[in-house]
Amino acid sequence: MSIYEELESNVRSYCRSFPVSFNRAKMSKMYADDGREYIDFFNGAGALDYGHNNDYIKKRIIEYIESDGISHALDLHTRVKGEFLTTFRNLILKPRGLDYKVMFCGPTGTNSVEAALKLSRKVTGRTGIFALSGSFHGMTLGSLSITSGKVPRAGAGIPLTGVTFIPHPHSHPELDTIAYMEELMTDEYSGVEKPAAVFIETVQAEGGVIVLSDKFIRDLRDLCDRQGVLLVVDDIQVGCGRTGKFCSFEQAGIIPDMVTLSKSISGYGLPMALLLLKPEHDIWTPAEHNGTFRGNQMAFVGAKAALEYREEHRLEEKTLKDEALVRKFVTERLLPMDKNLQYRGKGLIHGVDFGRVEIEDAAGLVGKECFLNGLVIERAGRGDCVLKIMPALTIEEDELIKGLEIIEEAMKKVLMGNK
Amino acid sequence: MSIYEELESNVRSYCRSFPVSFNRAKMSKMYADDGREYIDFFNGAGALDYGHNNDYIKKRIIEYIESDGISHALDLHTRVKGEFLTTFRNLILKPRGLDYKVMFCGPTGTNSVEAALKLSRKVTGRTGIFALSGSFHGMTLGSLSITSGKVPRAGAGIPLTGVTFIPHPHSHPELDTIAYMEELMTDEYSGVEKPAAVFIETVQAEGGVIVLSDKFIRDLRDLCDRQGVLLVVDDIQVGCGRTGKFCSFEQAGIIPDMVTLSKSISGYGLPMALLLLKPEHDIWTPAEHNGTFRGNQMAFVGAKAALEYREEHRLEEKTLKDEALVRKFVTERLLPMDKNLQYRGKGLIHGVDFGRVEIEDAAGLVGKECFLNGLVIERAGRGDCVLKIMPALTIEEDELIKGLEIIEEAMKKVLMGNK
Amino acid sequence: MSIYEELESNVRSYCRSFPVSFNRAKMSKMYADDGREYIDFFNGAGALDYGHNNDYIKKRIIEYIESDGISHALDLHTRVKGEFLTTFRNLILKPRGLDYKVMFCGPTGTNSVEAALKLSRKVTGRTGIFALSGSFHGMTLGSLSITSGKVPRAGAGIPLTGVTFIPHPHSHPELDTIAYMEELMTDEYSGVEKPAAVFIETVQAEGGVIVLSDKFIRDLRDLCDRQGVLLVVDDIQVGCGRTGKFCSFEQAGIIPDMVTLSKSISGYGLPMALLLLKPEHDIWTPAEHNGTFRGNQMAFVGAKAALEYREEHRLEEKTLKDEALVRKFVTERLLPMDKNLQYRGKGLIHGVDFGRVEIEDAAGLVGKECFLNGLVIERAGRGDCVLKIMPALTIEEDELIKGLEIIEEAMKKVLMGNK
Amino acid sequence: MSIYEELESNVRSYCRSFPVSFNRAKMSKMYADDGREYIDFFNGAGALDYGHNNDYIKKRIIEYIESDGISHALDLHTRVKGEFLTTFRNLILKPRGLDYKVMFCGPTGTNSVEAALKLSRKVTGRTGIFALSGSFHGMTLGSLSITSGKVPRAGAGIPLTGVTFIPHPHSHPELDTIAYMEELMTDEYSGVEKPAAVFIETVQAEGGVIVLSDKFIRDLRDLCDRQGVLLVVDDIQVGCGRTGKFCSFEQAGIIPDMVTLSKSISGYGLPMALLLLKPEHDIWTPAEHNGTFRGNQMAFVGAKAALEYREEHRLEEKTLKDEALVRKFVTERLLPMDKNLQYRGKGLIHGVDFGRVEIEDAAGLVGKECFLNGLVIERAGRGDCVLKIMPALTIEEDELIKGLEIIEEAMKKVLMGNK
Repeated sequence: MSIYEELESNVRSYCRSFPVSFNRAKMSKMYADDGREYIDFFNGAGALDYGHNNDYIKKRIIEYIESDGISHALDLHTRVKGEFLTTFRNLILKPRGLDYKVMFCGPTGTNSVEAALKLSRKVTGRTGIFALSGSFHGMTLGSLSITSGKVPRAGAGIPLTGVTFIPHPHSHPELDTIAYMEELMTDEYSGVEKPAAVFIETVQAEGGVIVLSDKFIRDLRDLCDRQGVLLVVDDIQVGCGRTGKFCSFEQAGIIPDMVTLSKSISGYGLPMALLLLKPEHDIWTPAEHNGTFRGNQMAFVGAKAALEYREEHRLEEKTLKDEALVRKFVTERLLPMDKNLQYRGKGLIHGVDFGRVEIEDAAGLVGKECFLNGLVIERAGRGDCVLKIMPALTIEEDELIKGLEIIEEAMKKVLMGNK
Repeated sequence: MSIYEELESNVRSYCRSFPVSFNRAKMSKMYADDGREYIDFFNGAGALDYGHNNDYIKKRIIEYIESDGISHALDLHTRVKGEFLTTFRNLILKPRGLDYKVMFCGPTGTNSVEAALKLSRKVTGRTGIFALSGSFHGMTLGSLSITSGKVPRAGAGIPLTGVTFIPHPHSHPELDTIAYMEELMTDEYSGVEKPAAVFIETVQAEGGVIVLSDKFIRDLRDLCDRQGVLLVVDDIQVGCGRTGKFCSFEQAGIIPDMVTLSKSISGYGLPMALLLLKPEHDIWTPAEHNGTFRGNQMAFVGAKAALEYREEHRLEEKTLKDEALVRKFVTERLLPMDKNLQYRGKGLIHGVDFGRVEIEDAAGLVGKECFLNGLVIERAGRGDCVLKIMPALTIEEDELIKGLEIIEEAMKKVLMGNK
Repeated sequence: MSIYEELESNVRSYCRSFPVSFNRAKMSKMYADDGREYIDFFNGAGALDYGHNNDYIKKRIIEYIESDGISHALDLHTRVKGEFLTTFRNLILKPRGLDYKVMFCGPTGTNSVEAALKLSRKVTGRTGIFALSGSFHGMTLGSLSITSGKVPRAGAGIPLTGVTFIPHPHSHPELDTIAYMEELMTDEYSGVEKPAAVFIETVQAEGGVIVLSDKFIRDLRDLCDRQGVLLVVDDIQVGCGRTGKFCSFEQAGIIPDMVTLSKSISGYGLPMALLLLKPEHDIWTPAEHNGTFRGNQMAFVGAKAALEYREEHRLEEKTLKDEALVRKFVTERLLPMDKNLQYRGKGLIHGVDFGRVEIEDAAGLVGKECFLNGLVIERAGRGDCVLKIMPALTIEEDELIKGLEIIEEAMKKVLMGNK
Repeated sequence: MSIYEELESNVRSYCRSFPVSFNRAKMSKMYADDGREYIDFFNGAGALDYGHNNDYIKKRIIEYIESDGISHALDLHTRVKGEFLTTFRNLILKPRGLDYKVMFCGPTGTNSVEAALKLSRKVTGRTGIFALSGSFHGMTLGSLSITSGKVPRAGAGIPLTGVTFIPHPHSHPELDTIAYMEELMTDEYSGVEKPAAVFIETVQAEGGVIVLSDKFIRDLRDLCDRQGVLLVVDDIQVGCGRTGKFCSFEQAGIIPDMVTLSKSISGYGLPMALLLLKPEHDIWTPAEHNGTFRGNQMAFVGAKAALEYREEHRLEEKTLKDEALVRKFVTERLLPMDKNLQYRGKGLIHGVDFGRVEIEDAAGLVGKECFLNGLVIERAGRGDCVLKIMPALTIEEDELIKGLEIIEEAMKKVLMGNK
């Protein structure tokens, strides 16, 4: 019995899909203890956009540690926090005309969502939240209340309240979702109180790579403006450049009232989370929301380096180029294999949806086959039936193609071998 | 205007008490940008028990990064996670006869508390929780619901439910608290449903260094056994050796059903959190509670090194020695200054309570004076009137005495100067 | 200042629309203190289906009181309760093949809804309820939670939880409401837990006379069967023969799991309420839900007499005849006045909807004019813009026509006078 | 199988203790179908203070019905409502210097409590309520939330929130309950938000005849004044003269912010309920809380007559005389039978508590024996172990003594027969 089976709680999960022990990793390659090498399309669930142990960032972090730079400082002022803030302002906020305050939350995405929930309620004096079916926002009680998955919701052990789930426009094209939300807000007999905020993911990653259209995002911004409701974009998984632009909502041309950021913000897989909020909503009293690890200094060092790296390596351009490559590959080489396959994607997050394919657990079989052939790739969505292609933004073209080819081979085996 | 004032949310707090920029730190010394040196009695709110940048741990972390050890791996198996688990089993669990499973939560204390809440409810099928007045368990919605502070509770913006606050035995010696809890559980007209669990801090740190007696803890364990209610010890701030023994409940001779650990567990101020749970309660389904940063590998490296360091440097013995020193100093040199001073402490967490002193904000004035004289020290408790003496467990004796003397001088100035 | 203005709370409402003092009433006529006579289309909000002081029932009640029959007996056995139960079984349950147990709740509709909520949750072990937008189920906290009106909901002063409002098929014909409910119940990412029950009014009376189609009711019954969800019909306002058949769901050919009855069940405007429940769901423990006035004996006397009266006077046939008369009158003489008028109705509940008429508060003006001309008539629905035609089922044809003509004249004045 | 067993829900309860069918009743006598006669110490659970079918009231009700007085009128103005209000003002409010507005709620006590909850929250903008352990306030969701019984609470099927139960001073004399409530309201770390209101019963009837001292009631009034918290007296069971004075709080010399009245207010066992509220709190919007049967006109007729009867027959004096008689009888003839008996009472509600008696279900055995010997008497409190002596206020002295003697004989048999 391994130490994991002996000691680790049953709650562990990914290790069941990828049952080897990892040791070393470099950019888009992971190395297992048994010497095998894997291409990484899993990407730390979105936390490793710059690749594993990116040398540019690594160097800065090691220097910082070697210099006995303070490692943990809650919300004290520190040189590296100041430098991160300055860099974030100069490279991200200013060029985009974003006038946000930055809140350092406990260093996890869910903490940032919890802060956004509190502030939404405080700013508006209302309690309700609108979220979309398919949403994933986190596992602590507040975030969980606006997460749509029934299994994690049941885990709460108490009724989760204060949220109204709105049918996602993707699954209900026959319904004018914007008009429906406005009806809920304004119809005196809707049963649903006007909410404090609408929370969205522009691309639902865990939900199965479900993409909101730019038009929908703009119409929602207008609705929120009309009704005095806050718009919160949870950019934890698809912010930091995943969709091309640094912020996933940029392309739609709107400015949310709040933005949650985490996962790849530190650039090195280190725990860190931010909440961006409009200055007029910055009505927190000091310490009203806090957390011991909100001052993870190594993460600040990494985050600053990552933003510089992003500029220097023109990651936005690269992402759009890679997007085209993936789209072409999937469309031309994967989709023709089965007419029931569906495909959605944006930037460097793409989903091949096996939900209507007539082979049981097809996506699971493909995933397993990929792993056997050296590709670590996650699944998402209803029934875990969406193969999620989400490599690091720094992936080399040949690695990207190699990974896609592994998928192609696996799909051939699973889909064609069964025909 | 500094970058902080320009960009950081009003929610920031400690930086208001200690308005300098910190840069470098080593063991119990912090260095500000202006060159000043501070003794650290603040200890990263409990996350730096081994001191800043402890060389033993630092060396391991740098080696790991340099080797391109995987930095972030969710709950995949990794060599360093396996090594941490093995070390934790061998140095902590086995010698204490603790038969626990380990759950890696999102890397913050509050996440561990959220997991404990979920599991308590799942195991018992009940929804209520008992917590003590004065308690602090975190700021995400679940943890916040069992946190006693009215200001943070109001921050939730919605009613916090599912908790019954029990008067702390410290403030109500006239009440038999154990009998009262049992009455709530069993009286058919108490109005209070039998809870899933009782959550305690053996020493309420944020609550103002309020210590539960060993007898109370034992009686509570008996009550929980009698009633089929789980006992959860939140050891986030006073576990990891803060009270002498590694677990704060060891001295009482009991075994909780769950234990939350965070703050100093990584040994280096890196975000990490654990939930210890009894194997018979390990009924999680895979991924039922998860979090991106639950696999902070550098923290695992640090945590293993810290446990080794603790053994090699006999920190338990040292802590008990330091406890005696502090107790003597406070009793002989501080308390005589004002008959209204109160004092509580255990291991290396001590509180001098100015709550009944007749000078307004006396603790605040003392804290400020300490800072001016080179000591970083936090306050806690009602009205922030408890000066919290909580140095690193590795502090040198001369530093400890020096820090205490700074307090003594500050108190003289504030208390005697006003007489 | 009248005694009402001096002493009665601001919460009073109908007396503001009909500002006279009523004294005496007989069948469909009400007499004010000033000697004026009114035709009653208001019908005690549905509690006077047999007319005011129906002689057949009146005689029995007086005899009972004169004989010193017990007036109030909680849930003791009493002769008149036994007689009511026997009559209800013989005249209502048996002929319809309804195998229900009868629960005597506190004597108000809302109490019956509260009992149905509790029992739904107890039977299924689930907490959620589905209700339709536009619904009205009562004003106590449980009933209010499934009532859709925002103003009464806000009156709760705390968030109302445990309910999901479903868009009413009347307002969202583009949505397959049944399929949508099933999606919420089964989609693993819908965010909405499978409910304990779906509560419907077959005709939303307070909601503005919104009629569910028989097909919808049947499809909903099928859905509930498929999903193991209870179907509760709130027949408080439109049961007891209002739609023709005694039970409003009979025409659809389905059998709900529970039925709430109140308002006209006593036949004399006396407080009384029932919950009908399937024997297999009768898992109440004794006194698990109770109420002092659940044994209103005079109401039992009235209720028995009313059921007899209903048979003897063939009220079902009469209602269908009157329905045709009203429908013809409204269609031919009222609707042509304004193309924006809408009309809905069933049995003897009909609504003329002024919601799209371009005159401000047209329904209010019409109502006032009616009252001036001797007709008491209520409004309902969004913006109170639906004139609700709901006379006693015993109304004489000439009174019915007279009342309709008063409406016609009022509408002419309001709609045509403005053109 | 009787019609009850065939058709009535399992929820029925009293009929199980008194398994005969009642038919006729007069003042303090009940007559069963089998011809047996019973003295009534049960009193319709408090709704029959003027006796069954009190001739004075009966005459007025019959006259009213015979005159075709309107029977049901929601909140329309009616002559008899006006007359009730005038009488209530002149005989109750004015002489006591009570400046209250009157709200007619749905005709059940629980409805009045629901209204009081809503208004407390609306007036203060707060959500929490303090209630005492042992309390009973009703069975609809709001009232149930402040009812202490675990069995009925569990019946809700969802967590009941928004209430903090305070240990009753009767069971915790060692605790300064007033100071403890103030601590909860003011201590920043109590975990308990300042409530909207404190709800009390001056005598907990269902709770087992637990009497609050006048001093406690006065101190609580002072506390509420100091803290800006509303004081609500639920006088449903022990108002209307049960404790001697019409209002149970009069003797303590305080004026609550709200008072709930029901049960005996109509004088004839007819459903009726009131909420008394201070004019400055009358911020209801019209119809914000409503209910079909809030205008039970026969109850208004009865209520007016009852108030007159009360004056004419000097019921207050009689009650105090009867109180002395009962107290003497219980003290001298019942208590000496077992040293473990406890006794509490006030006015004409008295409880003999068998809770500490060493015979299993002693109170149940005594109750059964009483019934066999012609006395209907209820039990209350924990384990149903308190025999509740609560005859009509109009009971004749010989009937009262006869009833007490039946109890005496029953106790002799149960307590002495077992010794």
